[in-house]
Amino acid sequence: MHESRRARLAALLAANDVDALLVTRGVNVRYLTGLVSTNAAVLVRDDASAVLATDSRYIETARRVCDGIEVMEQRDAAGALVKMARRPGIEAHDMSVALYRRLGGEPAALDGIVELLRVVKDESEIDALRTACDLTDRAFADVVATMVPGMTEKRIAQALESRMVELGADKPAFDSIVASGPNGAVPHHSPSDRPVERGDLVTMDFGALYEGYHADMTRTVAMGEVSGWQRELYDLVREAQRAGRHALVPGACTEEVDAAARDVIKDAGYGEHFGHGLGHGVGLEIHEDPFLRPAGAGRLEDRVPITVEPGVYLPGRGGVRIEDTLVTRADGPELLTRTTKELLIL
Amino acid sequence: MHESRRARLAALLAANDVDALLVTRGVNVRYLTGLVSTNAAVLVRDDASAVLATDSRYIETARRVCDGIEVMEQRDAAGALVKMARRPGIEAHDMSVALYRRLGGEPAALDGIVELLRVVKDESEIDALRTACDLTDRAFADVVATMVPGMTEKRIAQALESRMVELGADKPAFDSIVASGPNGAVPHHSPSDRPVERGDLVTMDFGALYEGYHADMTRTVAMGEVSGWQRELYDLVREAQRAGRHALVPGACTEEVDAAARDVIKDAGYGEHFGHGLGHGVGLEIHEDPFLRPAGAGRLEDRVPITVEPGVYLPGRGGVRIEDTLVTRADGPELLTRTTKELLIL
Repeated sequence: MHESRRARLAALLAANDVDALLVTRGVNVRYLTGLVSTNAAVLVRDDASAVLATDSRYIETARRVCDGIEVMEQRDAAGALVKMARRPGIEAHDMSVALYRRLGGEPAALDGIVELLRVVKDESEIDALRTACDLTDRAFADVVATMVPGMTEKRIAQALESRMVELGADKPAFDSIVASGPNGAVPHHSPSDRPVERGDLVTMDFGALYEGYHADMTRTVAMGEVSGWQRELYDLVREAQRAGRHALVPGACTEEVDAAARDVIKDAGYGEHFGHGLGHGVGLEIHEDPFLRPAGAGRLEDRVPITVEPGVYLPGRGGVRIEDTLVTRADGPELLTRTTKELLIL
Repeated sequence: MHESRRARLAALLAANDVDALLVTRGVNVRYLTGLVSTNAAVLVRDDASAVLATDSRYIETARRVCDGIEVMEQRDAAGALVKMARRPGIEAHDMSVALYRRLGGEPAALDGIVELLRVVKDESEIDALRTACDLTDRAFADVVATMVPGMTEKRIAQALESRMVELGADKPAFDSIVASGPNGAVPHHSPSDRPVERGDLVTMDFGALYEGYHADMTRTVAMGEVSGWQRELYDLVREAQRAGRHALVPGACTEEVDAAARDVIKDAGYGEHFGHGLGHGVGLEIHEDPFLRPAGAGRLEDRVPITVEPGVYLPGRGGVRIEDTLVTRADGPELLTRTTKELLIL
């Protein structure tokens, strides 16, 4: 698996006018070698051979995990490896200006090569993501069953996170968002000590990490009762989310998918209250290519896990966001987060 | 608090031949403004005025949190701010080569200025760290009371992490290490499905995050019984750790503190089995300046939180590590993690 990924990378090097790529980004090192580390680098050459360097903390694991790669112990991993190629390229979107200057020799500054390879997932990656999404669904079901007025946002977030881990997640995929009442107007609200109240909308944005793969789901629920404007907003966002999901086909332009959902919200007069993109790829990172944005470019491929998450945020009043993780498929998107999108009134 | 930090930064700019610093590193933006975000930058000028830019996801929080700063909504935060100074500097240790090239104008590449300011903590920071360490101690006490042969490393790690959160931690400060039996020979072992067995040494390295501050503690315990070599190794590491703690005084050279502990291990003939540094600063990051290493440089100041964590790792057999978080004080280090260092036999 890792060997074939390195072979695909090697095949791209000549076109970038380098004979090797010095991969320093942790998540890319993991993708190409299987090693999880905060200080490792791998040099992949155009003949698909590779050398990995890491420090004493990770060296034993590296020797065990990294099949078919030369492994060396070296604290200055990048410095040791860059000398082993004649025309090396570096990951310019990751490497710091300071490290680049220290390396010397002005290696070619390349941008996002391994990330390109990572966009289309193999089925083993989608399996891991499916499990991550399943854990997310199950934790949600268990926690909403216990939600009552008076619980704080923080306590709800903690309940979601520990339930996911109990069910088998490695850990939460990102810091959970729980935003109740007026806090729902802040898309990235941090859970606070505010107790949820009867009549609140409560937005929960969270997900499980499983074998390195990130699930991402958002649901907005109502506490006890739902008012007219809340129901109207919810139905609007659900309609927009549905339109976005249906536009998710291989070959579609990313900005068209964004527009499919955004137009629903714009037509209802709420366009200015939907200030973020419609979605993003997920995988070894919680946010990765491709991005669904109004000014995006590029077309969706097959087997690309991605989120669809429109939201409307009304300052001072609250907000609604509905988000699923899906995978593009030739015969229509596969829904990985399967929690109902009916408005739950708890 | 944030204002006085910005004033201290402003005072350093002229000596670096810039009239402003473009701060893009997330943890440094937080230190200088209070805003927690994955996409924000702040420009601090030599007159101590500041402008922060962030995207729509964080803009409401920024307006609420950032006192005395101009706040602007801008997805390309760095690009917008760099134009607002005549001779700006950038954080070369953080900014990517790609972003630097995109900014144009070759701003001065500075390295670690804000990190320098962050080394000496104010008492409010130490208070947060003291709470983080207290939560760590309490979770340890609760979890070791439940540890029995047959529990897997993963389950122990989950128990430590959820107990910290239940007690009030924001989340774990880093991915916990639980390494039992022969796995103890890998300093950064990831918790596995291996059940701990009677006769194992079990090393637990973990900590709580509280208000952004990171606790870090390691204890090695024995399951049920302890053999001669295990006891000998434990006593050796405990003696080395004690020597390291006692060397921790303001004015000491970092390499001398490292040597104080390392020499104990070397003299016993285990020098080659202690392959990492003695310790590291903790604060808004789990690893930050200063570092205690054999080839370190620099002297310790007063009010610097730091870990002391010698270890001995015997391939195929196991290992011992003992780690505390302390703060340097003029009258001797303040111990923040207070769990006993007697060998616990569970």
